[in-house]
Amino acid sequence: MTPTIETILSHRSIRKFTEQAIEPPHLDTIIQAGLAASSSSMLQVVSIIRVTNQDKRERLAELAGNQSYVASAAEFLVFCVDYHRHFTINPKVNTEYTELTIIGAVDCGIMAQNCLLSAESLGLGGVYIGGLRNSASEVDELLELPHHCAVLFGLCLGHPAQDPQIKPRLPAKVLMHENSYQALNLSDIDSYDRKMQHYYASRSANQKQSIWSQEVTNKLAGESRPHIKGYLNNKGLTKR
Amino acid sequence: MTPTIETILSHRSIRKFTEQAIEPPHLDTIIQAGLAASSSSMLQVVSIIRVTNQDKRERLAELAGNQSYVASAAEFLVFCVDYHRHFTINPKVNTEYTELTIIGAVDCGIMAQNCLLSAESLGLGGVYIGGLRNSASEVDELLELPHHCAVLFGLCLGHPAQDPQIKPRLPAKVLMHENSYQALNLSDIDSYDRKMQHYYASRSANQKQSIWSQEVTNKLAGESRPHIKGYLNNKGLTKR
Repeated sequence: MTPTIETILSHRSIRKFTEQAIEPPHLDTIIQAGLAASSSSMLQVVSIIRVTNQDKRERLAELAGNQSYVASAAEFLVFCVDYHRHFTINPKVNTEYTELTIIGAVDCGIMAQNCLLSAESLGLGGVYIGGLRNSASEVDELLELPHHCAVLFGLCLGHPAQDPQIKPRLPAKVLMHENSYQALNLSDIDSYDRKMQHYYASRSANQKQSIWSQEVTNKLAGESRPHIKGYLNNKGLTKR
Repeated sequence: MTPTIETILSHRSIRKFTEQAIEPPHLDTIIQAGLAASSSSMLQVVSIIRVTNQDKRERLAELAGNQSYVASAAEFLVFCVDYHRHFTINPKVNTEYTELTIIGAVDCGIMAQNCLLSAESLGLGGVYIGGLRNSASEVDELLELPHHCAVLFGLCLGHPAQDPQIKPRLPAKVLMHENSYQALNLSDIDSYDRKMQHYYASRSANQKQSIWSQEVTNKLAGESRPHIKGYLNNKGLTKR
C-alpha cells in the first residue's frame, strides 16, 4: 500500500465546500499534474476552462441541473475535447471521425483524474459534473468554445465541508473478465443491491430506499441526453 | 508536493518490461484502485478483460499494429465500455445514445488512470494501447465481447526494463483558459516545437527529427480510424 493507493482508495465525491480558496501554488500543481497525463499519439486534445467569474459559475450551476456546488466550490474546471488548436495550426485537419471524440473523452478522463487525485492528496475534495452535458450548447456558448472544441464535463475542487462515506462499488468479479467476456452472474448483482440498499438507507446525508440495479437500468430505459449527438456534430465532431 | 503528486509528475510510458510477474496482491490492489474511481451517475459501465492467454496476447500485439509489449508485459488489461450488464438486468435499456459512449470513454479513462498510477506508485510502469482500435472488430471477436460492450483501449503493466525521459507537454498557458476560450498564440507552439525537437533528437532511444505541430496536424489531415463509427454502431452504441 503506497500513499498514492491510499489516496485513490479513500476517494468519495465532495459536494459541500468551505469558502476557503485553493492556494495558487496548489492550483498550479494540480494543473501540472493534469498536464503530466498520457496523451493518445501525443495529440494533446484537452483544453481546460477555469471558471472564476461568479455570474458564469451560477449560470453553469443552473445549466448542470441546479448543482449549487458548481457555483460554490473554490475552483471549477471545465474539460473540453479540443481540435481547434490543431485546426489553427493546419486548417486541413479533419475532426469529423468518431475516433477523435473517443480519444478526447478518454484523454479528458485521464487528465482530470490526475487533477482530482493530486487535489485529494493535498486534503482537497471534488466531484465530476457530467450534468454540464444537460445543456451542452448553452455551456458551449457561455464559455465561447470555438468550432472543433466541445464541452465534456466539469470538475469542482475545494476544501471539503462534509465527510461522506465511501460508496460501495460493484465487486471486481463483476467488472473483471479473463481472456474472454464472462456472463453476468445475477446473484452478484443481488448481493450488491443489498449492500447498496444498506448504504443508501444508513448514510449520513440524503438517505433513501433504493435498489441500484433497478435505479440505473430504469434510467437507461429512458432517453440519455439525446441532443449530444447533434451538439457534437455541430462542433464538427463524430459525423463519420 | 505529496507522494501522489510525485508519482503523477514522474509518469512516462514504459514499453520494455522485465519477465518478472506482478505479484497477485499488487495486481489485486491495482484493480481495487480502479474500482474506487468515480462513476457517472453510478452507472458503472466499465469492464476489464485481463488477458493471460499468451496466444491471445500475441494476436492482440499484432492487431494493435505490432506493438510487441502487448505480448511481453506482465499484465495486459483491456478496457471496455459495457452496457451488456445493464441489458442483462433489464432488456429495456437503450444503449444507442452517443451520450452513453461518452460516459463510457470518460469513465474508462478515469478508472484506467487509477490503475496506472497505483501501479506506478508500486514501482511498476505501463503504457496505454489505443492501437487496439486499429482492429476493433477483430479484438472484439477475440475477447468474445457481447452486444452493448465495446473495446476502447488496453493498458500494459509490468516491471520497467527501460528508464525513458519524461516527454515535454504543451505548457499550461496553451491548454488553460479562464472564463472563456482564448485564442491560440502560435508563438507558444513554436517554443514547444523547439523543445520537442530537442527532446526527440536527444532522447535515449528512438531518436528522430520531428516537429510536433507538423507531425500531429499532418496525421489529423488524414483518416482517423474511419471504421470506429461503424464498429460502435454495430455494438448498439452511438447511433443516436
